Amino acid sequence: MRLAIVQTSPVFGEASANVKAALNLMSSVEADLYVLPELFNTGYNFLDGREAEALSEPMDGPTFVSLAEFAREYGRYVVYGFAERGPNLYNSAALVGPSGLVGRYRKVHLFDRENLVFAPGDLGFPVFDTPVGRIGMMICFDWMYPESARTLALKGTQIIAHPANLVMPHCPDALVTRCLENRVFAATANRVGREDRGGHDLRFIGDSEVVSPRGEILVRLGDSDAGVAVSEIEPALSDDKRINDHNDLLRGRRTDCYEL
Amino acid sequence: MRLAIVQTSPVFGEASANVKAALNLMSSVEADLYVLPELFNTGYNFLDGREAEALSEPMDGPTFVSLAEFAREYGRYVVYGFAERGPNLYNSAALVGPSGLVGRYRKVHLFDRENLVFAPGDLGFPVFDTPVGRIGMMICFDWMYPESARTLALKGTQIIAHPANLVMPHCPDALVTRCLENRVFAATANRVGREDRGGHDLRFIGDSEVVSPRGEILVRLGDSDAGVAVSEIEPALSDDKRINDHNDLLRGRRTDCYEL
Repeated sequence: MRLAIVQTSPVFGEASANVKAALNLMSSVEADLYVLPELFNTGYNFLDGREAEALSEPMDGPTFVSLAEFAREYGRYVVYGFAERGPNLYNSAALVGPSGLVGRYRKVHLFDRENLVFAPGDLGFPVFDTPVGRIGMMICFDWMYPESARTLALKGTQIIAHPANLVMPHCPDALVTRCLENRVFAATANRVGREDRGGHDLRFIGDSEVVSPRGEILVRLGDSDAGVAVSEIEPALSDDKRINDHNDLLRGRRTDCYEL
Repeated sequence: MRLAIVQTSPVFGEASANVKAALNLMSSVEADLYVLPELFNTGYNFLDGREAEALSEPMDGPTFVSLAEFAREYGRYVVYGFAERGPNLYNSAALVGPSGLVGRYRKVHLFDRENLVFAPGDLGFPVFDTPVGRIGMMICFDWMYPESARTLALKGTQIIAHPANLVMPHCPDALVTRCLENRVFAATANRVGREDRGGHDLRFIGDSEVVSPRGEILVRLGDSDAGVAVSEIEPALSDDKRINDHNDLLRGRRTDCYEL
């Protein structure tokens, strides 16, 4: 199974051009699953909820239509982040495949000023069984909470698709820990570039990567340029939770000792 | 508050000499809390439960007596790992202070052949309030389970004392994630050296370290020599869980979305 991370450099507010740029990158490689960044179509640094609302789309909006067409035409799967206009405004990710929408996720742990713009996710951490693997999603800051990846692993996730707009430096290394402690694959698709708006100057760190259940960094992109990379992976490796003859990672959990 | 990590190179089965060597290292620096490795007095690579039983000590055995004397004489606190002869045989850690035993912890997640030798810990993850900070303990492989450090953090731990006998390479970097995701200090005291016994050849990786709530590695020792290092820390920094104006780390947990 070929897993692609797509690292973009979106222009704020230019959804149509940003989607086109992403599709160009995607078309340059062959993969079974493409992971795009958080809010890849709109950009990130909204002045307020009203601006985000204006740039948001319903689940079946033009961004979905473009990516679903790519997925259908080439028989691929795509995970991408977007501002979802639903019952509330959500920082969402969607998984689309050859037959259309497979499922969506709404960011559970909102970061910083996102709390002023979006409603917190209300769908938990769903997992979707597809022909290319059991896929779960988390978005950017969700990495900080070990419960995100753990919950996905407990539900049988083989590949964590992780759209991101990282501005802090820690996640690329922490993702290694997330994969080790859950024995899953994870793919962070981060963006690069800068958005200096309304007195908030944000630089995005790139470093998109794919990490294996053994904590190996299979590929990591740079910190300044858009790009795409493909890793050949075997999702079933995530089903083997044995660490040695005497330790099974998940069966060895001691829930009697944990505080939730 | 001065936090010392003591990295030892014990000789298997020579408890008296190993305790003396550790005390020599400890006496070479001034600190308020000294953290020693897992099973620092006996060594690690037991052939079987009978050998471990023979080398084990009750809580108030000679190792405790020596360290409690050090703690009383100099007004210090010490965390150390030892094979505890109790209702069962445990891979334990004890916290001793100027007035004697403060509390103990029994390793919850046993690693590899330890499962043949020790009973799993039955005391949960207790936290002890002392004049030098609120101290919790985890032992070696407990690091692999994010629930260990999380449980300690939820119970108010400021400093995780982490006696270890690490043979895998991942923990020193993963500890940075543990500190970031919980905003606590952590001190891994690991050992160096090699134990080739009964067909099991183990090399211990050293790299003892102190990490801050911001994920800074305040000090890290080497991978081959015994040694000691002291970090000046402010335990109260662990009480500040604010990440920014809109995120409080622990209050931001979404237990409604987590699987235990």
